[in-house]
Amino acid sequence: MSRERPGLIMSGEMAEQPVVLRRILDEGAPAVRATAERIAARAPRFVLLTARGTSDNAALYAKYLLEVLLGKPCGLTSMSTITAYGARPDLTDVLAITVSQSGGSPDLVASTRAAREAGAVTLAVTNNPDSPLAAVAEFHIDILAGPEKALPATKTYTASLLTLYLFVEGLRGGDGAAARVLPGLAQRVLARGEEVRQLAGRYRFAGRMVLTSRGYGYATAKEAALKLMETSYIPALSYSGADLLHGPLAMVDNVSPVIAIVAEGRGGRALGPVLERLRGRGADLVVVGDEAEVARATAGFALPTEGVPEELQPVLQILPLQLLAYEVTLARGQDPDAPRALAKVTETR
Amino acid sequence: MSRERPGLIMSGEMAEQPVVLRRILDEGAPAVRATAERIAARAPRFVLLTARGTSDNAALYAKYLLEVLLGKPCGLTSMSTITAYGARPDLTDVLAITVSQSGGSPDLVASTRAAREAGAVTLAVTNNPDSPLAAVAEFHIDILAGPEKALPATKTYTASLLTLYLFVEGLRGGDGAAARVLPGLAQRVLARGEEVRQLAGRYRFAGRMVLTSRGYGYATAKEAALKLMETSYIPALSYSGADLLHGPLAMVDNVSPVIAIVAEGRGGRALGPVLERLRGRGADLVVVGDEAEVARATAGFALPTEGVPEELQPVLQILPLQLLAYEVTLARGQDPDAPRALAKVTETR
Repeated sequence: MSRERPGLIMSGEMAEQPVVLRRILDEGAPAVRATAERIAARAPRFVLLTARGTSDNAALYAKYLLEVLLGKPCGLTSMSTITAYGARPDLTDVLAITVSQSGGSPDLVASTRAAREAGAVTLAVTNNPDSPLAAVAEFHIDILAGPEKALPATKTYTASLLTLYLFVEGLRGGDGAAARVLPGLAQRVLARGEEVRQLAGRYRFAGRMVLTSRGYGYATAKEAALKLMETSYIPALSYSGADLLHGPLAMVDNVSPVIAIVAEGRGGRALGPVLERLRGRGADLVVVGDEAEVARATAGFALPTEGVPEELQPVLQILPLQLLAYEVTLARGQDPDAPRALAKVTETR
Repeated sequence: MSRERPGLIMSGEMAEQPVVLRRILDEGAPAVRATAERIAARAPRFVLLTARGTSDNAALYAKYLLEVLLGKPCGLTSMSTITAYGARPDLTDVLAITVSQSGGSPDLVASTRAAREAGAVTLAVTNNPDSPLAAVAEFHIDILAGPEKALPATKTYTASLLTLYLFVEGLRGGDGAAARVLPGLAQRVLARGEEVRQLAGRYRFAGRMVLTSRGYGYATAKEAALKLMETSYIPALSYSGADLLHGPLAMVDNVSPVIAIVAEGRGGRALGPVLERLRGRGADLVVVGDEAEVARATAGFALPTEGVPEELQPVLQILPLQLLAYEVTLARGQDPDAPRALAKVTETR
């Protein structure tokens, strides 16, 4: 486990993200669009998304895109209904998307095969075109992130988001041009490591954290919580703003710092009453995103959102939070490259 | 806030559960079956479930029933796509079920109205037939739990589970006879408060907890985590067994006790490798459910599962965990009836 410097692998892969995003836009986009056109011709009426861990958060992002931009009802699947209970639903008219960076988890392969047998149009979105998952699905899209060696996934997350965005754009005949600003903006955000280091000090001794958002940003809240947990082991709980008000708010007080991801757009505005409630309770509130809300919070990290539609902001939102997980972990004397129990391919059946 | 005895309201409502379950079976079942028959005649192909908080966990249980027993693809909706982003999906052939004990949350009413306008068959499952939600949905089923005064929902949860079970049974022409053993068994489980009090001692000083399960029991893990958080404020994280192996396992060590809900049946067996991994890490593992797995764990609470099909075990599984949330809260010197921030009807929009 000894390495030159703790976190070297994770930090290198985080830094690669602008290059990966540009590669997807320059080299990957035509194939994504072609696949989207072929799938659109099949006219799916309902979309099921299957994934685990970080990829599950990318799938959640895609769910919002599909529902809001395309008006397709979506579901995130409970894989065990197929793998443990042997359910064989009728999936005619269903597009079944499986997201997995490795494409190697046996349960994802099994559920994708079952979905195809049940009549679904199946699409695998992976970082490995030679994977069993890519082979079993009717369609495959490569997220082109390059080999990922760090156990906490970072570049495959943003690569999945951008790829899924381009796919949904392709389904509705768009060209995804709005995404072209992302590599440059991502570069700018990642250069602000010192700001994140300042924020990380707040959490060095935290016993728990709460992350919240609404709409597209909800996937960011969940992914940031997962990243914090799997690197620093801080129990980080994520809730949609509305769910937070339904009970877990009781946990938010002077011992539970809150990080809110506030988009510039409708999701961010819908979070307004939640932020007000948190400020009213005197919560330690750090805002990532909208500059005006950062100014009203205890602290924060403002994102450059000018010209970035709300549905693309998640690609930027996660960057300071990946850096935060990394910095908090270092501050706690742990190695972000050596989480205690992560395996890169999870072999649940 | 002064009351005769801390937790009196919650404890009274927990104790009512056998009576409520019997009422549903004796008085509610015919209406549930009639509604199910009318909805089955409309031949929905997909099901969307919408709920928040405790009701969202009941909806998750229903999702497993619908997928496993009926083979209907399902999704849990992200309400903000409709309420914040104004998405108007095409919901022809979709059954949209909204679960809410109060039936009063404006966002649930708005999203149910939108679903009906978008062509869905809409069903509200509530504890209040006079609620705005019951009025806006085409169909309504009353869960007959009687007035719920405690802020942590208990009897409305088990009432929702049983009602949803009878509904799904009705959709497939079953009579739900297997549920008739539940009131008696629930009575037996609730009488074992002393056993739970013993378990509660383990968590008095816990800084965090992890709950896990697979299949039908996953809803129990999520609901137990919510109950623990909203009463005791312990950060309680819930994961499906497969997701737990994907990262959060790093958090499970000698400072994170684990509670596993192990059904007698396929979901329980699918959890086997996860339990083995947890034992291998020397985790503090408490098992609720299957007697053989309780015997292999650090401690546990065995449930009477003889003659109870796996899909009905969640109605019993949650009972010792409700009691546990109650007892842990008392042990920590707090009042289960007075969570700091819960409102019974959440008015997010």
